[in-house]
Amino acid sequence: MKERIFGDIKGFYEGDTFKNRIDLSLSGIHRPIQAGISGSQIEGADSIVLSGGYEDDEDYGDIVIYTGHGGRDLKSGKQVADQQLKKQNLALAISCQQGLPVRVIRGENHKSSFSPDQGYRFDGLYRIEDYWKEIGINGLIIWRFKLRKIIFEDIDNQLFQENIVEENQSNYKNTQRIQSQVSRIIRDTALSRQVKEMYQYSCQVCRLSIITNSGLYAEAAHIKPLGIPHNGPDTLSNLLCLCPNHHVKFDFGGFTIEDDFTLVGEPGVLTINVNHKIEREFLEYHRVHFYEEND
Amino acid sequence: MKERIFGDIKGFYEGDTFKNRIDLSLSGIHRPIQAGISGSQIEGADSIVLSGGYEDDEDYGDIVIYTGHGGRDLKSGKQVADQQLKKQNLALAISCQQGLPVRVIRGENHKSSFSPDQGYRFDGLYRIEDYWKEIGINGLIIWRFKLRKIIFEDIDNQLFQENIVEENQSNYKNTQRIQSQVSRIIRDTALSRQVKEMYQYSCQVCRLSIITNSGLYAEAAHIKPLGIPHNGPDTLSNLLCLCPNHHVKFDFGGFTIEDDFTLVGEPGVLTINVNHKIEREFLEYHRVHFYEEND
Repeated sequence: MKERIFGDIKGFYEGDTFKNRIDLSLSGIHRPIQAGISGSQIEGADSIVLSGGYEDDEDYGDIVIYTGHGGRDLKSGKQVADQQLKKQNLALAISCQQGLPVRVIRGENHKSSFSPDQGYRFDGLYRIEDYWKEIGINGLIIWRFKLRKIIFEDIDNQLFQENIVEENQSNYKNTQRIQSQVSRIIRDTALSRQVKEMYQYSCQVCRLSIITNSGLYAEAAHIKPLGIPHNGPDTLSNLLCLCPNHHVKFDFGGFTIEDDFTLVGEPGVLTINVNHKIEREFLEYHRVHFYEEND
Repeated sequence: MKERIFGDIKGFYEGDTFKNRIDLSLSGIHRPIQAGISGSQIEGADSIVLSGGYEDDEDYGDIVIYTGHGGRDLKSGKQVADQQLKKQNLALAISCQQGLPVRVIRGENHKSSFSPDQGYRFDGLYRIEDYWKEIGINGLIIWRFKLRKIIFEDIDNQLFQENIVEENQSNYKNTQRIQSQVSRIIRDTALSRQVKEMYQYSCQVCRLSIITNSGLYAEAAHIKPLGIPHNGPDTLSNLLCLCPNHHVKFDFGGFTIEDDFTLVGEPGVLTINVNHKIEREFLEYHRVHFYEEND
């Protein structure tokens, strides 16, 4: 079983076309031969194919409203039952919550002016902004996902491209790249997930987990920020697992952390997993640069 | 006293130049004649001028590291005291927390390859991504602000441009516009602030206020989401004041709200200000589309 790759696949570029689903699968752009959604409910979804399967899909080019999976009769292809937020649909929801990039492929049978004349075309990386359920055209519940194409000039990357190390392309955490004028930020979600799983999605400050319709939610917070001019590293030793409230409060200097993990500006002590080695220098950076006692 | 305008100023465009600070002030692009930061600690900052005042400024074009105000000797211009997160510096911090757009003007004296040859040039809208303090070149504390140019193609706007009403330009809440291929989203922060002030920045679910180094923090949450395909309105009747935790939980369907404001998926009842008229139809939209009981 190959590792699931999020983001770009080495050797392939937006606009590449494939004769059929087998060639598409072999490329790694979208591995399942039949399913429209590639993903698992643990890792999230890494790609989707728009191929005319659902009459409810809407395609605006850079924005796609994609209909989830399930509830269809295998023979007729007609929807006969409500869709549920499980399996591949849950995979898309997880990708939404974690900000994972999703490869979008349009097929010739997809009813849209954006479809290729023949075969399947890789149309780049999208992010899932939102998901919800509704009553579809045929009166049954469908889950829908709003995808938006990732178009973002990242000046930090351009300035520091000399610092970008030759990457192990086996994992999406390293898919930052410079491509002509446009480079893409792919959030380091492999590491983010690692720190969140280390704490079972509970906040290292207050121990709270947020319960959503797709499971537990927490955020990975960088202690020394990424990017110009801080240039903190994207490593476990520079990450915390926080609830959104404590993430905001930490980023905006409402509390900070001593070298012995005592909290300042919050009661108590940071919860630490024995396998989580936080660098003291990053804590010091945060204390010096961000924390400001409130009068 | 004219109302402070955030975002674009009617009749002026990026690239417009001004002979001197008086012309710049009359345009409304940057009203103060001397100060580098236009803003108040209540409303936030609406514009800055880069004019070589601080040796600590760094200019990468689309990213600017801007040094705050204060601590300088009026005669010599030399820094003689620590800067504080007050007045104009606090105004910039508020703009950061609220996602307010800041007009950036470069002056001929600004030491950068991006500076105009003469006079002052309006270089577009930026957002403040981050702020922090550090020891400046001269050994005293300075506050610094990282600004990033707003470059974003908004397909929602393009698709629905026929729906954009002719706007009262007196307020930044209405500065959405279509300009050639690129249109900009300016977040509706006038309304956002209104709902947050209505509840003194405390969450309508749990009553918590987040305390940061710049004061209280809360988020304005749309009940029926903006944009394709929900097209919820940007009105007070569609907004809630929530802490980040309950904002995430609400957006990801972890709880919802009955017509009598009883919470489902959270204990208790929504706190309501008598002047806050929430439309029941938006609550129903959220219940139907987002809430999913967790097994």
